[in-house]
Amino acid sequence: MKAPDLGIKLGVFRHGKKNSIADVKGVKVGHVSLIKGEGKLIPGKGPVRTGVTAILPHEGNIYKEKLLASVFVMNGYAKPIGLIQVRELGTLETPIILTNTLAVGTATDALIEYMLDQNEDIGVSTGSVNPVVMECNDSYLNDIRGKHVKKEHIFEALKNAKADFDEGAVGAGTGMSAFEFKGGIGSSSRIVDIEGRKYTIGALVLSNFGKREDLTIAGVPAGLELRNWPGKGGEGKGSIIIVIATDVPLTARQLYRVAKRGAIGLARTGGYAYNGSGDIIFAFSTAQRIKHYQKEIIDIKSTPDDVLSPLFKATAETVEEAIINSLLQAKAMTGRDNHIRYALPKEDLLKIMKKYGRLEKG
Amino acid sequence: MKAPDLGIKLGVFRHGKKNSIADVKGVKVGHVSLIKGEGKLIPGKGPVRTGVTAILPHEGNIYKEKLLASVFVMNGYAKPIGLIQVRELGTLETPIILTNTLAVGTATDALIEYMLDQNEDIGVSTGSVNPVVMECNDSYLNDIRGKHVKKEHIFEALKNAKADFDEGAVGAGTGMSAFEFKGGIGSSSRIVDIEGRKYTIGALVLSNFGKREDLTIAGVPAGLELRNWPGKGGEGKGSIIIVIATDVPLTARQLYRVAKRGAIGLARTGGYAYNGSGDIIFAFSTAQRIKHYQKEIIDIKSTPDDVLSPLFKATAETVEEAIINSLLQAKAMTGRDNHIRYALPKEDLLKIMKKYGRLEKG
Amino acid sequence: MKAPDLGIKLGVFRHGKKNSIADVKGVKVGHVSLIKGEGKLIPGKGPVRTGVTAILPHEGNIYKEKLLASVFVMNGYAKPIGLIQVRELGTLETPIILTNTLAVGTATDALIEYMLDQNEDIGVSTGSVNPVVMECNDSYLNDIRGKHVKKEHIFEALKNAKADFDEGAVGAGTGMSAFEFKGGIGSSSRIVDIEGRKYTIGALVLSNFGKREDLTIAGVPAGLELRNWPGKGGEGKGSIIIVIATDVPLTARQLYRVAKRGAIGLARTGGYAYNGSGDIIFAFSTAQRIKHYQKEIIDIKSTPDDVLSPLFKATAETVEEAIINSLLQAKAMTGRDNHIRYALPKEDLLKIMKKYGRLEKG
Amino acid sequence: MKAPDLGIKLGVFRHGKKNSIADVKGVKVGHVSLIKGEGKLIPGKGPVRTGVTAILPHEGNIYKEKLLASVFVMNGYAKPIGLIQVRELGTLETPIILTNTLAVGTATDALIEYMLDQNEDIGVSTGSVNPVVMECNDSYLNDIRGKHVKKEHIFEALKNAKADFDEGAVGAGTGMSAFEFKGGIGSSSRIVDIEGRKYTIGALVLSNFGKREDLTIAGVPAGLELRNWPGKGGEGKGSIIIVIATDVPLTARQLYRVAKRGAIGLARTGGYAYNGSGDIIFAFSTAQRIKHYQKEIIDIKSTPDDVLSPLFKATAETVEEAIINSLLQAKAMTGRDNHIRYALPKEDLLKIMKKYGRLEKG
Repeated sequence: MKAPDLGIKLGVFRHGKKNSIADVKGVKVGHVSLIKGEGKLIPGKGPVRTGVTAILPHEGNIYKEKLLASVFVMNGYAKPIGLIQVRELGTLETPIILTNTLAVGTATDALIEYMLDQNEDIGVSTGSVNPVVMECNDSYLNDIRGKHVKKEHIFEALKNAKADFDEGAVGAGTGMSAFEFKGGIGSSSRIVDIEGRKYTIGALVLSNFGKREDLTIAGVPAGLELRNWPGKGGEGKGSIIIVIATDVPLTARQLYRVAKRGAIGLARTGGYAYNGSGDIIFAFSTAQRIKHYQKEIIDIKSTPDDVLSPLFKATAETVEEAIINSLLQAKAMTGRDNHIRYALPKEDLLKIMKKYGRLEKG
Repeated sequence: MKAPDLGIKLGVFRHGKKNSIADVKGVKVGHVSLIKGEGKLIPGKGPVRTGVTAILPHEGNIYKEKLLASVFVMNGYAKPIGLIQVRELGTLETPIILTNTLAVGTATDALIEYMLDQNEDIGVSTGSVNPVVMECNDSYLNDIRGKHVKKEHIFEALKNAKADFDEGAVGAGTGMSAFEFKGGIGSSSRIVDIEGRKYTIGALVLSNFGKREDLTIAGVPAGLELRNWPGKGGEGKGSIIIVIATDVPLTARQLYRVAKRGAIGLARTGGYAYNGSGDIIFAFSTAQRIKHYQKEIIDIKSTPDDVLSPLFKATAETVEEAIINSLLQAKAMTGRDNHIRYALPKEDLLKIMKKYGRLEKG
Repeated sequence: MKAPDLGIKLGVFRHGKKNSIADVKGVKVGHVSLIKGEGKLIPGKGPVRTGVTAILPHEGNIYKEKLLASVFVMNGYAKPIGLIQVRELGTLETPIILTNTLAVGTATDALIEYMLDQNEDIGVSTGSVNPVVMECNDSYLNDIRGKHVKKEHIFEALKNAKADFDEGAVGAGTGMSAFEFKGGIGSSSRIVDIEGRKYTIGALVLSNFGKREDLTIAGVPAGLELRNWPGKGGEGKGSIIIVIATDVPLTARQLYRVAKRGAIGLARTGGYAYNGSGDIIFAFSTAQRIKHYQKEIIDIKSTPDDVLSPLFKATAETVEEAIINSLLQAKAMTGRDNHIRYALPKEDLLKIMKKYGRLEKG
Repeated sequence: MKAPDLGIKLGVFRHGKKNSIADVKGVKVGHVSLIKGEGKLIPGKGPVRTGVTAILPHEGNIYKEKLLASVFVMNGYAKPIGLIQVRELGTLETPIILTNTLAVGTATDALIEYMLDQNEDIGVSTGSVNPVVMECNDSYLNDIRGKHVKKEHIFEALKNAKADFDEGAVGAGTGMSAFEFKGGIGSSSRIVDIEGRKYTIGALVLSNFGKREDLTIAGVPAGLELRNWPGKGGEGKGSIIIVIATDVPLTARQLYRVAKRGAIGLARTGGYAYNGSGDIIFAFSTAQRIKHYQKEIIDIKSTPDDVLSPLFKATAETVEEAIINSLLQAKAMTGRDNHIRYALPKEDLLKIMKKYGRLEKG
């Protein structure tokens, strides 16, 4: 159940059919979840609570037909790869892989292999490839030193990708925590009207940040109200990765502007980009494909900046809801050293939302 | 009356004595408000609803003893001056002037003159000076084409500077609007504990942004509730300038991180940096002075990043409250073409806050 | 006489007809030079050696039909205005004004007035305007504290604009120094072939930087050879403003890439962006106009990045030559405190170039 | 033989004892070179012409005692990892690994393992680690699709690190090309005097960029002169990684300024950051160590910006020479498809340098 299913309304725009990033046509998401062992941490052995999430930005060959893209770093305590080239050239040319911090090397290597397999020209008759991999640190529940993510898990996540994907404690979100509850993968979407033209914007987050007290839902201080709910702990060393997709025609410069508005959504859930948090917001548009082999002048379709405000507002909203959805959909998880992350307690939450006048139904 | 005086609690930190940026020792603020004429706009003639606000960062000679500083541009639809050098050198060497958009030339010129008067060496035996001037567009109420701000008004604002300064529809805030209510100057502060050391952080804003429906106060959708309150209108071409001062020892790199967290506070009031908004966040630290004539190695005092999260959280909070205070303290103003900006209606607001369970007292 | 006229060949591309920025169709340049008094500096009185240069990017109404633009700050010890918005929106909407550092306020104010005069809608039925003003410090020859540039000088420079403009110690270049010789305004252009399509790129510089010993011409250490030529002195507090125009279809992102290559040209003349130098490189494309009032999706013509390398190389070359031309065309000037800046001595230079095998003819 | 040994003088500063980055006390460099097979490219099989270079920034535990650092991206057509966090926090906490583009995943993974081995607290009682890996594309000589760099090669390169290290076609430089000659690893250093205090600055480059005609040595158009020398070819898809070390006390902000000046040195060798080149300049200072576990205020030693110009100039010079040294020290290499990269022909070069009056001795 996502926020609207519970009667929690975040913002004013209507969401798409799936209320997920896959409402943007062509976007697919695949997960691999790794759960093994329990009890005391034996560094390098377990317990294992981690995984991989792959985002396929369109159904074709993304290397041969790139998408315009950009990225905003709200807080750079983070170890992503691929962002420097995205900023320079304004294009995305691989699927996006999310995983744990110490798996970025493995994931990068696997993504390179995947791209080589699909493109025989790379490294032979054309240049190289720019893999995009982003991460959060799941070491509160996971034996992160064990480096349990293997290359085959990345391949599998890529293969698993589909429009109807799970959320919560799955894929890269398996071991993640948010606001000292169980966090992980969350998604949402919005339909936005720009000068009479209908578009979709969707977000997928990997949430792994926040102290309990900071959690804010539709403006309600839910975290303060739930401060005595058990399961607190963890150094607050987290991060959040936010991926935004839209079919609005935008240049890379404009997608940077959209990415920045992702931070607005983050702020409204109680996030403030604390020191140890790697808060990265990646945005791409499916409106147009940029061919790898192209020498003639192209026309880049661009919606005038002057009419983008509704899109900016919808961006903030969909990111806000995607974060809350990551909490609402994640089931409790016990992991390393018997650390437990409870699911956000629905019943209590609904009472709190009602108390603050923010429950729509029931 | 500021937010806490009304029983509206924004965040969890305690505020300083004045609950203003002047709680940071040495910071002073001066205003000049220009109000003349009424009725139909006669471009170049009036009505006049504009002004100047000057921020003095310390009591000494700021050119000879600079402060470490940085700036984050949340949205660059703006015409500030001085920011390029602040980013390069990490220092502030003049007072900060806030005024209307078309007055930046005049204000820059006046600030240069003021600096020349105080420093006979500029342009003779040393280099030049980097004036910092920022602006919002007050044309909903003001005949901005009239360029009614003159150099003497800048000098006067500088001379007027004091620790106990007015807020609301004064100084640069005279003609500004926020959420289709009267906005302008607002300020707030927080006391923050970093590893047992007590510090102050304060913010001053010039608010001039937002559609009515977006206004959010302590998480409460006050703007939606007040959507039928009269006085709506205006193209939503606004901006917000946020100035943050603190006595925490920080490098310029760290002050950039602080400035970024100002955007978190902005987001929580309902701002989402819409296209036409110039959202600029300037931060400086009074903890240390950097001498103009200095050739020896200096020690820059720096609080480790690892313990800065409380400061980041307090930054968001104090900016959030400063924005709300700008609304709470601004009196209604009629201006150009009889446009009226009502004051945020206190009684209605308190009812709304109560309805949503967010009123602390009474 | 420009470099090629003297047999000094900088690079490998052929230049345009005028070998100036005005080879890019529609670009015009106007100057006002202020020269008054001599002898000892009486701060505020004289001597006066300063001026204004205006660049008109096209012949139409630049506010209503903006050009795509970007800017790279190689060293931000500088006081420009307008760059923040150019980076955000990727457009230039006013002429560009160059002048001395302490005149930026006056120039900004004048440019605003000029724009208001041409556009009755600004501040009435549409938003404000983003003036672009850049500067260097001419205080080695000029009584910069005297603020001798007045608003009428900016209007006059704008009115004077033409395709056949003077170079050297004129306009904003009147009091500028380069490599302890007389510097100022220089310009150059190149014809570049991109996949069989012919384009023009031109640069105009305001040169005011460099120690004698650093001067490098076509790789020849001319400055070291001329180190005993008289007229040395000055603190080396200078700057350089570089403006690049092209008719290649480029997005704002790509113009940022072009601007960066301006720094390559600067480096080859011996510049290394010393601490006190404000080194700013502004680039715009005349290939396409972006309408002020536009709500429909537009097609932005963009040359693929993959074929831009020739343009990048030509950018470096034309900037390199523009800087050398600023020296070659500047006549000696005596100013404040009888400081003298000699013209780069042509005869000696030609001997030096010959000695190092870099003289093409005669 | 490096440039000075041949009588080629680049700039005016004197170099350190080794004329390498290891003149900065504590810096060590290790290589692993992989050369196997020859003849026709069989993608995935060979021939192998690649390797790894590791830079150890100091002799202690770099994770526990970090160094201040920054990075400038001159052209972001590149796939580095670790730069986002370096920019945010201003510190380097791992050795730096250089390798080929498709090996960045493997190298990252290996570097993470290396760091885990040395620090039992990572992922257990403290956060994660930020590996710094940078790359160039060696596919003109190497079967880059074969991904022949394995984790053990990274470990070995780290183990091999010493102050007296080889240059040229070794380590990561094994398969690299520069100006259509053999390129690879090059290094240089300069002694710089700042207000009477003596410091060292050193650079190490991985050169893999440039068309023959562009090669410039001490201002001499060596590449044009050598344009008929055999061995030309390759798409010009290259890059350059520049690593700068110094013992000057500098903040991260200042190291960014230093890194930017690396681009000046690059420009003077004929580089202009062509489209496909990933030109990254990384700078760190050994003057001060920042402890991982630190909660008290620290004093960051900083040399005033006003006296940094000599350092900026020396930076440009040492980078320029390091690039030329990478060519001078690389032996010819035949690789994939019998592509041959000749060594820069010394005899011819000396004749050319003499012709242009730039040979110091002999």
